[in-house]
Amino acid sequence: MLTIVGELINTSRPAVKEAVINRNKDAIIDLAIRQAEAGATYIDVNCGNMINNEEETMEWLVNTIQSAVEVPLCIDSPSAAALDVGLGLSRYGRPMINSISDEEERFDTVLPLIKKYNAKIVVLCMDSTGMPVTADDRMKVVRQLHKKLNQAGVADDDMYFDPLVKPISSVGTAGIEVLETIRKIKSDYPNVHFMCGLSNISYGLPNRAILNRLFVVQTMTLGMDGYVLDPTNNKTMADIVTAKALLGKDNYCGGYIKAHRSGLLG
Amino acid sequence: MLTIVGELINTSRPAVKEAVINRNKDAIIDLAIRQAEAGATYIDVNCGNMINNEEETMEWLVNTIQSAVEVPLCIDSPSAAALDVGLGLSRYGRPMINSISDEEERFDTVLPLIKKYNAKIVVLCMDSTGMPVTADDRMKVVRQLHKKLNQAGVADDDMYFDPLVKPISSVGTAGIEVLETIRKIKSDYPNVHFMCGLSNISYGLPNRAILNRLFVVQTMTLGMDGYVLDPTNNKTMADIVTAKALLGKDNYCGGYIKAHRSGLLG
Repeated sequence: MLTIVGELINTSRPAVKEAVINRNKDAIIDLAIRQAEAGATYIDVNCGNMINNEEETMEWLVNTIQSAVEVPLCIDSPSAAALDVGLGLSRYGRPMINSISDEEERFDTVLPLIKKYNAKIVVLCMDSTGMPVTADDRMKVVRQLHKKLNQAGVADDDMYFDPLVKPISSVGTAGIEVLETIRKIKSDYPNVHFMCGLSNISYGLPNRAILNRLFVVQTMTLGMDGYVLDPTNNKTMADIVTAKALLGKDNYCGGYIKAHRSGLLG
Repeated sequence: MLTIVGELINTSRPAVKEAVINRNKDAIIDLAIRQAEAGATYIDVNCGNMINNEEETMEWLVNTIQSAVEVPLCIDSPSAAALDVGLGLSRYGRPMINSISDEEERFDTVLPLIKKYNAKIVVLCMDSTGMPVTADDRMKVVRQLHKKLNQAGVADDDMYFDPLVKPISSVGTAGIEVLETIRKIKSDYPNVHFMCGLSNISYGLPNRAILNRLFVVQTMTLGMDGYVLDPTNNKTMADIVTAKALLGKDNYCGGYIKAHRSGLLG
């Protein structure tokens, strides 16, 4: 089972910011419906750059999205107050929080929200010492965060570890360190899940789409089972359907054949 | 370093068979040049279905190809006599034999040719009990063949293990058993190489090209370093160049950026 978090409702995208400022419900509903129909299992809600009225904006976005689709939400914000608003309004299934880390203030403000809303949690492999470089760097943070979350009563099945993808254009081993992190996490914590965004991997390089797409295939091969991405990108979704069939996670290739009949595979 | 064996000069392809029967040098030379220019590090020569005059055909093909390109050849035949002819005429670099297995007669007739021509060898994970199903089935054969080849003085660096790819349409785990075989071989024999054909993986399914291409990406992720494929297929080669960059095997993404500038990435 793959978790696909649709990333399009994010006010860092200029068109979304404009729609939000104008309280253009139709534009947001259109993004919600298109992502749900394309296979998003969660819809990300991020208005973190609306710093003057993030909580009010979060309320409007969550209500607008839920007026049109019944998909669970991934509430995504640097602000614990905005997370609290979004989570409190989430009506369909258990919500997800994006994200917790081992930075002290972040951990202490987000942990209570996990408990309060029985939320699933994206866990960034990062602490107050900064961004990790190697797989071993990441595993130190993973062990620490897993221990603290476990002690707080969060189940492994509710944790979605994000290994933090960095550009291969600056460090050539950035991709394989992520692959190695997935292998180590799966080996040490077989019941946790994964979540990652992709676009960082290709930062600074041309033809970014092919790098992002093949990095999905590579990480899936090692066992990654969650992505924050644009599910309306047919090429990405075709690659995911195909990779699942190749990995034996598609009974009788039924999903693959259905995707072929729908024209998704091109 | 990836080994790409260009597969197009094979008389099982009707157009090639016709060119061979008509001794159409230009057609064969065109295939040889196009494969070499597209990045083939070996050119496969297979006329195994010309059963009435395979040895004479092999001689003509090898001489024709070598009149145009200076790429080493992969001599591919069920017949030891035809292998002997092709290997004896190979002039550029060390030739490769496709293939040896642990079927008794095959092993005994091919081993002397490896020694006689100092050839590299594709090693099929197959014995007289038939085609393997699981990774463990394959590893039994791998251990047996590695031991026998090693005792005969064949270096690990000259062995190219072919895990034998089978269709996911008949057994859903066919792909992951191959991935697991690669992982086990790399763990137990870190200095050997790999070789595989791809098209079997997608047999019986629609849109076979996307399955074949993503299976290259998946197997490369586990460490496979050799493929028998059509190097003139730009999408396949674009995926390979991209996967190498993501796996940290492309210094400063130089090969990727070059492929972008050449238009290969689309």
